Amino acid sequence: MTRLVMKFGGTSMADLERIRRAARLVAAEYDAGHKVAVVVSAMAGKTNELVAWTDGAGRPTGDAAGNDDASDDEYDVVVASGEQVTAGLLAMTLRNMGYRARSMQGWQIPIKTTDVHGKARIADIPPEKLCAAMDSGEIVVVPGFQGVADDGRITTLGRGGSDTSAVAVAIAASAVRCDIYTDVDGVYTTDPRIENKAKRLDKISFEEMLEMASLGAKVLQTRSVELAMAYRMPVRVLSSFVEPGEATDQGTIVCDEEEIVEKHIVSGVAYSRDEAKITLLGVPNKVGVSAAIFGRLAQANINVDMIVQSDARSGEVANQLFTVGRRDAKQAKELMEAAQGEIGFEDLRIDENVSKVSIVGVGMRSHTGVAQTMFQALSEKGINIQVISTSEIKISVLIDEAYTELAVRALHAAYGLDKIGA
Amino acid sequence: MTRLVMKFGGTSMADLERIRRAARLVAAEYDAGHKVAVVVSAMAGKTNELVAWTDGAGRPTGDAAGNDDASDDEYDVVVASGEQVTAGLLAMTLRNMGYRARSMQGWQIPIKTTDVHGKARIADIPPEKLCAAMDSGEIVVVPGFQGVADDGRITTLGRGGSDTSAVAVAIAASAVRCDIYTDVDGVYTTDPRIENKAKRLDKISFEEMLEMASLGAKVLQTRSVELAMAYRMPVRVLSSFVEPGEATDQGTIVCDEEEIVEKHIVSGVAYSRDEAKITLLGVPNKVGVSAAIFGRLAQANINVDMIVQSDARSGEVANQLFTVGRRDAKQAKELMEAAQGEIGFEDLRIDENVSKVSIVGVGMRSHTGVAQTMFQALSEKGINIQVISTSEIKISVLIDEAYTELAVRALHAAYGLDKIGA
Repeated sequence: MTRLVMKFGGTSMADLERIRRAARLVAAEYDAGHKVAVVVSAMAGKTNELVAWTDGAGRPTGDAAGNDDASDDEYDVVVASGEQVTAGLLAMTLRNMGYRARSMQGWQIPIKTTDVHGKARIADIPPEKLCAAMDSGEIVVVPGFQGVADDGRITTLGRGGSDTSAVAVAIAASAVRCDIYTDVDGVYTTDPRIENKAKRLDKISFEEMLEMASLGAKVLQTRSVELAMAYRMPVRVLSSFVEPGEATDQGTIVCDEEEIVEKHIVSGVAYSRDEAKITLLGVPNKVGVSAAIFGRLAQANINVDMIVQSDARSGEVANQLFTVGRRDAKQAKELMEAAQGEIGFEDLRIDENVSKVSIVGVGMRSHTGVAQTMFQALSEKGINIQVISTSEIKISVLIDEAYTELAVRALHAAYGLDKIGA
Repeated sequence: MTRLVMKFGGTSMADLERIRRAARLVAAEYDAGHKVAVVVSAMAGKTNELVAWTDGAGRPTGDAAGNDDASDDEYDVVVASGEQVTAGLLAMTLRNMGYRARSMQGWQIPIKTTDVHGKARIADIPPEKLCAAMDSGEIVVVPGFQGVADDGRITTLGRGGSDTSAVAVAIAASAVRCDIYTDVDGVYTTDPRIENKAKRLDKISFEEMLEMASLGAKVLQTRSVELAMAYRMPVRVLSSFVEPGEATDQGTIVCDEEEIVEKHIVSGVAYSRDEAKITLLGVPNKVGVSAAIFGRLAQANINVDMIVQSDARSGEVANQLFTVGRRDAKQAKELMEAAQGEIGFEDLRIDENVSKVSIVGVGMRSHTGVAQTMFQALSEKGINIQVISTSEIKISVLIDEAYTELAVRALHAAYGLDKIGA
């Protein structure tokens, strides 16, 4: 008998009928011989309602540097209640079906976290209590998203944290796998809303999934993939509308690269419209200028993605170009303008009509010509590449936002992604 | 600096505006020099919503003998979340007003209870953590209605339990008083909806309040009065619409009899329509018959109130008459009919068109003629008394339900209650 962790998101917990459906899926895995723990989100919409109440009660939104206020510990008390409700309801539903089940709150297991309220990170989950209950034949229902700090106060992990809770519980339970039931039936070669030839992948490596998640594919929360990768915990993404008992071979398994026999050079095409390009024109080409620019952005907790220095004229001045998240663009612009005297740039331009399109694949490590195929495909469609950045298993380009869909489809075809997968 | 416990019910927590109003009342007491703990109910209607969800999830309703099912521990997990939310929101609101405040859940203080889920009783509240926070200048916000069992599971006290939570927290904190803010402005000589000459009492003794609560006056939960009486904790009932800073001398103080200088012979007239009268006709007058009747009702957890044995004919047969709560009437009738052979009665009659009207007053102990005044007043209005029962400080009569208001007004006048009070 192996231990299995299952996770259901907010749409799978949206009402009593959906909760009963989830319970049948849990029961089927239990009947198949697994020891099961289930991690649940709050009912869809409930967390937003609770957050709105905390806003109305005067929750401080933090200062410009993103520092938290002490009030966030009470924010956590309020919003953690949503998962408490669904955990109790699912446990009751399972009992009503004749199964032994019980909920365990974050403070009961405990799920120990840091004390950064509102965006805590899981520090440790002692396995004893959890595993003892599972091994005794109880189905343990765990509210996602929540934990407890060393001082005994309730914490939450930040939005979307339930995926991370599920992976962490799976690691603590030494589970054979963590199954994430959601409203899509797996990980696709690209967004099917843009390219209807997109194919579901049977398997994808942790590294690829991590890049896909960071690049805007919203199937799994980035932090949950990082955690799964660190502990080599296989994660399966599948639809909560699968029939009970028929979950085997459904969805996409995120796993170690070595377990993937048929490797693709490129596994997926991702895109993000959450980009803004800032160009500093005529920056003096002297020591310490880059530090002055990016030090200021880092201090304000603004994440800088792509950086290019270009157009060095006679070695004296250059243009500095970088991208930030669109929601940070205004603040980044103000920070730069405030430091114009010190940095010494001549002019600043900001462009929010850009998007980032990326190809991801572990096969890049061992194949040449991958980048060339990308540039060729975009060039053939007349798409101008503004910035390029690469990692070992990914190539990203910044383009005019209007060409996003065209670029995604061109790249999907260029790498033959419509011919692979499930 | 004395410690003070304040309690706000569901209507006082119904939305963010009401929560802000409660926060201003709390702040005024803090500014006046009190160390304050606040006990809160869930938002009005929220507990009903949560209970409905648990019903939908298949909460067992228990068997006929009132035994609880294990599922009730998950019921508690779900419904306790309502008070968790309001506790967090009130703490945030107070912080936003510049006060130091924090919530403490039942398991954090802890509020230790028995493990009878859904209707647990408070066993102990260790004062250390609560008092340390209060003494450090923090306003401590405690969710009412909930606690934690020895096994670390969440419990709830049953509906209306927040009054009891408040009194228990006041006792643990050695508070000078427990102020219950509610939607009425005190305890009245009778229900003002029936008698508009009803007067608010400045003070009422624990014993009187306990009788009033048991007899149907819904101002305070019976269990909370029992607890306050046992520990001689003064409780003040006042309106949550009092202006901040003007709470002094408002409402009604429930206190020790010795602290009431001006004692009334009768302090109030209470009534209850939740009555049903069952008459067993022609019961053999032999040993063990009463035990057979009332033993059966006790086994089924049916509370019997008034009992009269009458009409003994030549010492051989008698009529047995008793009253039960109206919701138990059907079950009581079925239990009697099932045992007709053993008990040996000839016929059974059930009458739900009855009500119980009572006068309550510690002055009865030292004054004669109190009952005679009651019977005379009812007789003058032509109201027939079906059953009489008395305790040291109360006289109750069972009458035709149609005469309830008439009887209440007649008794209110007969004891001069329109001339006393605040």
